[in-house]
Amino acid sequence: MPFDELHEECGVFGIYNSPDRHAAVHTYYGLFAQQHRGQESAGIAVTENGKMKYHKKQGLVQEVFDEEMLAFLGGDSAIGHVRYSTTGKNIVENVQPIVRNYREGKIALAHNGNLINAHELRDEMENLGAIFQTTTDSEVILAQLVKNRLTTESLEEAIQETMQIIRGGYSVLVLTNDKLIAFRDALGIRPLTLGIVGDSYCFASESAAIQMVGGEVIRDVAPGEIISLSREGLQSIRVFTESSRFCSFEYIYFARTDSNLNGLNVYSARLEMGRQLFREHGVMADMVIDVPSSGMAAALGYSYESGIPFGRGFFRNSYVGRTFIKPAQNMREAGVNAKLAPITENVKGKRLIMVDDSIVRGTTIRRIVQSLRDAGAVEVHVMVSSPPVRYSCFYGIDTPKRQHLIAAKHSVAEIQQEIGADSLHYLSLEGLRHTLSGASTGSCLACFNGDYPIPGDLTEQSKTCC
Amino acid sequence: MPFDELHEECGVFGIYNSPDRHAAVHTYYGLFAQQHRGQESAGIAVTENGKMKYHKKQGLVQEVFDEEMLAFLGGDSAIGHVRYSTTGKNIVENVQPIVRNYREGKIALAHNGNLINAHELRDEMENLGAIFQTTTDSEVILAQLVKNRLTTESLEEAIQETMQIIRGGYSVLVLTNDKLIAFRDALGIRPLTLGIVGDSYCFASESAAIQMVGGEVIRDVAPGEIISLSREGLQSIRVFTESSRFCSFEYIYFARTDSNLNGLNVYSARLEMGRQLFREHGVMADMVIDVPSSGMAAALGYSYESGIPFGRGFFRNSYVGRTFIKPAQNMREAGVNAKLAPITENVKGKRLIMVDDSIVRGTTIRRIVQSLRDAGAVEVHVMVSSPPVRYSCFYGIDTPKRQHLIAAKHSVAEIQQEIGADSLHYLSLEGLRHTLSGASTGSCLACFNGDYPIPGDLTEQSKTCC
Amino acid sequence: MPFDELHEECGVFGIYNSPDRHAAVHTYYGLFAQQHRGQESAGIAVTENGKMKYHKKQGLVQEVFDEEMLAFLGGDSAIGHVRYSTTGKNIVENVQPIVRNYREGKIALAHNGNLINAHELRDEMENLGAIFQTTTDSEVILAQLVKNRLTTESLEEAIQETMQIIRGGYSVLVLTNDKLIAFRDALGIRPLTLGIVGDSYCFASESAAIQMVGGEVIRDVAPGEIISLSREGLQSIRVFTESSRFCSFEYIYFARTDSNLNGLNVYSARLEMGRQLFREHGVMADMVIDVPSSGMAAALGYSYESGIPFGRGFFRNSYVGRTFIKPAQNMREAGVNAKLAPITENVKGKRLIMVDDSIVRGTTIRRIVQSLRDAGAVEVHVMVSSPPVRYSCFYGIDTPKRQHLIAAKHSVAEIQQEIGADSLHYLSLEGLRHTLSGASTGSCLACFNGDYPIPGDLTEQSKTCC
Amino acid sequence: MPFDELHEECGVFGIYNSPDRHAAVHTYYGLFAQQHRGQESAGIAVTENGKMKYHKKQGLVQEVFDEEMLAFLGGDSAIGHVRYSTTGKNIVENVQPIVRNYREGKIALAHNGNLINAHELRDEMENLGAIFQTTTDSEVILAQLVKNRLTTESLEEAIQETMQIIRGGYSVLVLTNDKLIAFRDALGIRPLTLGIVGDSYCFASESAAIQMVGGEVIRDVAPGEIISLSREGLQSIRVFTESSRFCSFEYIYFARTDSNLNGLNVYSARLEMGRQLFREHGVMADMVIDVPSSGMAAALGYSYESGIPFGRGFFRNSYVGRTFIKPAQNMREAGVNAKLAPITENVKGKRLIMVDDSIVRGTTIRRIVQSLRDAGAVEVHVMVSSPPVRYSCFYGIDTPKRQHLIAAKHSVAEIQQEIGADSLHYLSLEGLRHTLSGASTGSCLACFNGDYPIPGDLTEQSKTCC
Repeated sequence: MPFDELHEECGVFGIYNSPDRHAAVHTYYGLFAQQHRGQESAGIAVTENGKMKYHKKQGLVQEVFDEEMLAFLGGDSAIGHVRYSTTGKNIVENVQPIVRNYREGKIALAHNGNLINAHELRDEMENLGAIFQTTTDSEVILAQLVKNRLTTESLEEAIQETMQIIRGGYSVLVLTNDKLIAFRDALGIRPLTLGIVGDSYCFASESAAIQMVGGEVIRDVAPGEIISLSREGLQSIRVFTESSRFCSFEYIYFARTDSNLNGLNVYSARLEMGRQLFREHGVMADMVIDVPSSGMAAALGYSYESGIPFGRGFFRNSYVGRTFIKPAQNMREAGVNAKLAPITENVKGKRLIMVDDSIVRGTTIRRIVQSLRDAGAVEVHVMVSSPPVRYSCFYGIDTPKRQHLIAAKHSVAEIQQEIGADSLHYLSLEGLRHTLSGASTGSCLACFNGDYPIPGDLTEQSKTCC
Repeated sequence: MPFDELHEECGVFGIYNSPDRHAAVHTYYGLFAQQHRGQESAGIAVTENGKMKYHKKQGLVQEVFDEEMLAFLGGDSAIGHVRYSTTGKNIVENVQPIVRNYREGKIALAHNGNLINAHELRDEMENLGAIFQTTTDSEVILAQLVKNRLTTESLEEAIQETMQIIRGGYSVLVLTNDKLIAFRDALGIRPLTLGIVGDSYCFASESAAIQMVGGEVIRDVAPGEIISLSREGLQSIRVFTESSRFCSFEYIYFARTDSNLNGLNVYSARLEMGRQLFREHGVMADMVIDVPSSGMAAALGYSYESGIPFGRGFFRNSYVGRTFIKPAQNMREAGVNAKLAPITENVKGKRLIMVDDSIVRGTTIRRIVQSLRDAGAVEVHVMVSSPPVRYSCFYGIDTPKRQHLIAAKHSVAEIQQEIGADSLHYLSLEGLRHTLSGASTGSCLACFNGDYPIPGDLTEQSKTCC
Repeated sequence: MPFDELHEECGVFGIYNSPDRHAAVHTYYGLFAQQHRGQESAGIAVTENGKMKYHKKQGLVQEVFDEEMLAFLGGDSAIGHVRYSTTGKNIVENVQPIVRNYREGKIALAHNGNLINAHELRDEMENLGAIFQTTTDSEVILAQLVKNRLTTESLEEAIQETMQIIRGGYSVLVLTNDKLIAFRDALGIRPLTLGIVGDSYCFASESAAIQMVGGEVIRDVAPGEIISLSREGLQSIRVFTESSRFCSFEYIYFARTDSNLNGLNVYSARLEMGRQLFREHGVMADMVIDVPSSGMAAALGYSYESGIPFGRGFFRNSYVGRTFIKPAQNMREAGVNAKLAPITENVKGKRLIMVDDSIVRGTTIRRIVQSLRDAGAVEVHVMVSSPPVRYSCFYGIDTPKRQHLIAAKHSVAEIQQEIGADSLHYLSLEGLRHTLSGASTGSCLACFNGDYPIPGDLTEQSKTCC
Repeated sequence: MPFDELHEECGVFGIYNSPDRHAAVHTYYGLFAQQHRGQESAGIAVTENGKMKYHKKQGLVQEVFDEEMLAFLGGDSAIGHVRYSTTGKNIVENVQPIVRNYREGKIALAHNGNLINAHELRDEMENLGAIFQTTTDSEVILAQLVKNRLTTESLEEAIQETMQIIRGGYSVLVLTNDKLIAFRDALGIRPLTLGIVGDSYCFASESAAIQMVGGEVIRDVAPGEIISLSREGLQSIRVFTESSRFCSFEYIYFARTDSNLNGLNVYSARLEMGRQLFREHGVMADMVIDVPSSGMAAALGYSYESGIPFGRGFFRNSYVGRTFIKPAQNMREAGVNAKLAPITENVKGKRLIMVDDSIVRGTTIRRIVQSLRDAGAVEVHVMVSSPPVRYSCFYGIDTPKRQHLIAAKHSVAEIQQEIGADSLHYLSLEGLRHTLSGASTGSCLACFNGDYPIPGDLTEQSKTCC
């Protein structure tokens, strides 16, 4: 995907009992390694000698935290969160981890995913007198936990009860004065990995974050599993054991290429998607290029399978940040593209296979194809290493409403014409399933085929998110 | 009081149904006029067409809000709050108004005062599963309101039930999508005034804020009264009618000289305190000076009654702000006082009556007296326009713990020696009562005589404050 | 003057050979004490072991410098500057001290005053190839110094030559790697004082700044004098000895009441102005009030001489800063005055003498008088403790153009009608001269009588200022 | 080069007579496209109706300018500058364009390069009385221009005289109220290109900047050429015609892959460097990988020539900014690399050719090689697409002092051992010459062979830079 058309909604990191007050520092690096999962805000809550402190704010991890703040936080244990958000002016309240006071002291919660029944649960609780600070489903999870804690023997039991009630995709870390608990939804829709740094257990959305802090991956938290870390050590409770449905888009676009999710490496999966694309469509040309940078592994796979050389078609300006002033309409019409510029010398006179990971709205790819033609490309064949995105996600990815998904309204032929490609080919659903067959979990393909694995309300109000 | 030894804890302002989206703007000026009641943070919540927006942050009113923000807020109705706080790094959550979601939508609350049973109520509610975001007693009031709303017919009834349960000094404004409600504790400890701007009712802690926005004062909200503004107009409910006990320190030090509280003008009260000081002690000298600027009105009263001319003893540098770097110990010993410098030419060779409003810790007055002697004053007689402060306040003023109150441990003679004055005289309790006799309420004198009008826990944990 | 109608243009401070790297810290406090002389920007240049460092920026002294910056600067010797400016967006270049590289290394200069022939000197030098970074006359002084240094034996000689060429009011501090030199214009129009802190000589615009750092005043730098501090000690050169003309507005409005200028204390001078006002006009009433706070000393003088009691008519809100949003026109018409509010209780029913230090544009005094009437004052007699301001200043005070001076166009009777006073009286020129007779210098009264002591171009282009 | 070991020192952009006040906007995008040439500060000076305005500050282009500022600047003509700098606290004065006042009004100058005789020229001028604001050689160029203008008929003549005096590498843009003039040093060491946007001529360091604003490249400014744009149109003056020596490092590392410099495309040149590496050394393995991202084109060339498949060995975290907190020593020893993480799945068990563009200090490549081994790579052969860097640059690239260049002190065999590679191969000097043979200019190879094309002082003091 060339531009920020699609957003992961959050990454989490947690560490238990880190020596020398290093919990906040490790979480800083664990979040930094997952910055691609959320650039809008970041937060860390720590406990130290049974006391909780936290800091959170809008901004990148490195903008939110400086050395003084990390030294202030210190911490034996910590959880952290990076977040992408769409809300307006007063969003500081929504920044995670959320921290609250309840009967047993302070509790912090960090959540990646989306509940589809958060609004119902919220209404129910409000009718019983509950007060909410935010409109996030994360606060609903926390409120359920605290409520269920009143009638259970332990926080772990309260989590079990909560998991029976909340529905959706969720990977959650909870920090209290003496415990760090992780739990993952029944279908394992969102990722969550257990690792170890020195002698300290840690959790992360992606395995790369564990490697970033010098740790080793132990295993994925299982779908429907609770892992509780306390002075007594690690306790695992498997609440659900149904067949799993992991988000296929993590492999296609979101996750880092060096992450292994459910036993399958992301780079390898993308290579295989590219190979499969050639197997399915067999289009030949002079050069395979990627739409930088997310399409590169699939482009290499296509090149390997087809024998067509891989080359670069674009220079990518990596300095585009939040404060960049977008070119005015007249400049865009003049072909100004702030981020991607064709390497004219390398594309002119060539027939090109351009590999992209996905097409969501389809608003920018037309200009990208055109820029290649303007630079002298003879043919531009677009290969997409995923099936057409025809349905919205309700489990934690910020897909636009259906009416904005180009493939929900248009056939492949129509899209090909719309984007001005000489040909357009998508990976088949079967092909995608094949490339993901090495994962230990099944796949959620709802955004491609509408087969939503969790029954329930799938309207806009169920997209409150973390 | 020469330095910031004592802090009011909050000021509030509210306006109902202001035309042309002017609610936020009026509240801005209403808060600005009450900036002396809290400089640490400021916030405004508005409703417009039944929707609530808000903005709040640490800083002065004019730092927190700019024109763009006021235009964004607009608002038909609004409440606002300025706050002094003592908490640490993560205090943004404590900034008021607090805004929450409950069964009937959003609700905002701004509070001036302190409950003495907030921690008990909080424990009770947490044991029933309640979750708190902050540690302020304001959130306890809001939680009680929402809880009582479940079993009552109206928000006004829920407030009545809440007023039966919460104990302490409080002046509260509550804003919902269709109402603005004010209520004041049974004893009327903290101030609250009703006014009108054009056709719009408004509330403020001090009458001067109502004049600042071009409005007129109607009357004080009565102790134990609820005033509810809605489309049906103004409804008044008198929940308690016991005899009142208004905070005497508002007259002595906190309030603006142009404010009238409970029918008594602050400047006039202070003049009378100064006159009474002379009547009680009759010390003669060459010149009466004030400790700038809070002691000036009492100094003038002393001058009037005694016939001794009033003059200025000090130049006051008004630029000392939060970022000012305090002089190092060695500079302080060299007589460096960043804020007050004696006007040598005017004090040398003179016998001085120096009038201050109160002595709390007594840490700076010694140096002030010394600076006058260094400048050549022959005698320095210190007159304090209040009785010795011997007890902590638990109703909304940030007095230090008893052990830090100089008059709790020392006799007047000892204090006189400590501060190096030729004589030291306090206003008598009877004298103070006399000067406040023009007010429509009785006086709380607990900080002078320990006669706490509300029974209950008076330990540090009951000082959570707004 | 009630509002910021008139601005001093700069204050300076310098210290030579301060032990323990304290030069920057002392200069910080010396500038802080002179913050009223310029609030737009501040800067400090230091030398340490023969190397120069500096920091300067827009903002108050306490905003520009923090402890880290002061520690970085340290310094054996230092000069500093506070500045009021009227320029536009790109003004950081104009912030002083200006620091330049020349043949002998770095040189820094801080200047209070205004040259009237800066533009001519600048044109001359540009025609010879000179390049300027700013449009300030301070840079012209520095350029002259460097130019004259080429043909002289010492920097002191170069200063003497420069003083023969530049014309206007100036008090200048120059810092080089081994010297700190002060010089004052021939007429001593702007103030400059020599003091000592410990064993270190220091200079300041006002004596109060020397007291602020725990130092003692030695004497004023004489008009036309150069004082050079070096390892050889203090050297004084008297370049001019003509009769002096010190700015009378320093006594009337600008300087601190605790400063002594040319041997005359400012507070005492203002008291005498008030006494003289009564002697000249003899108006009786019920109470004398000040326009806070600059009119207070004169109001007290009026009270002393007349026997009419002094009281406060206004509460002054001291929180009005640069970011304060000015009330809209409709609010102002409704009587909203952000800064001054009448103490209704104290003025209603009374005949008042309201003393102000000066009237420049006369735009706000009308509303102030009106607010007293609205509050119930029966009569309002305005007494101004200076003669009518009829001419612009070209020597360092930012008076508006003549056409904006109300007294340049209108008679006293017209002004009285315009501001709505029952009577209006100014101090006579003779009266002013009398009150300043205790100073060791003569007075510049050009803004009152147009008698400009320095011949030359008095057009707008000659007001480039420091 | 994996980390920021080497810095280009500046990029420039200028546009003449842009319609609709678009000069600042176009310059913004032109600078943004060249952000890789300098990330420390940015500035734009414009002229509009013969008046000059400017804004410049530390920070990225998009941080320094917002829409409001661009609208304020507007402009008919403009020059802009991005800068990398090594100086300390007070560097705002050094930010370019430098703007000065001289006899004919304002003049602005933006410079990419480094003079080797700036300090001498500066001393000469200071001895004649010149004053400098900065320590940059850019200010020396400007001072020479202004000085020579006194004795010449036109600014163009003054530039010719100046080019006879200044020695080094320089590409300069000068803006006056009515002209935009570009000039390039005799050897054409630094790049400079002429383009056209609509009907407006423009200049940029790299051709990609011209394409970014929707323009077309006309030709490079020739070595030793002056191009002057005025109302009379474009005037070209060829001051020198000696044989040229363009910086080869622009092709190796600095320039964008989509830029054409002197007729040679950067991407193509790098592909050829990779091909030539294989031709020279012929090392075979299982996979060719790049050190992201600067080594990629050469890695592809190596892959093409050898037939060994290209793959990715690393995930690169692109969020590392200036405020990122560097991992502590113990974390680095644990293998933590904030920016590059090996894709274990793709490198384990493989024999790797790792292609990098250059090795300067050699401090980080050892850890990168080690991280591949830790991830399971069987062999790591390092291929460097440039010859060993053995000499410092004095013409505009911030190479470290010689003693910090690993190849200045060590043989290739020693370096191979130091970095822990199985083999290490550099491109030969002859090979490099061959790959650059398509350029219209000769090459400066001084950093490889010490053959400095401009005689003169090559000590640290001659590295003052733009």
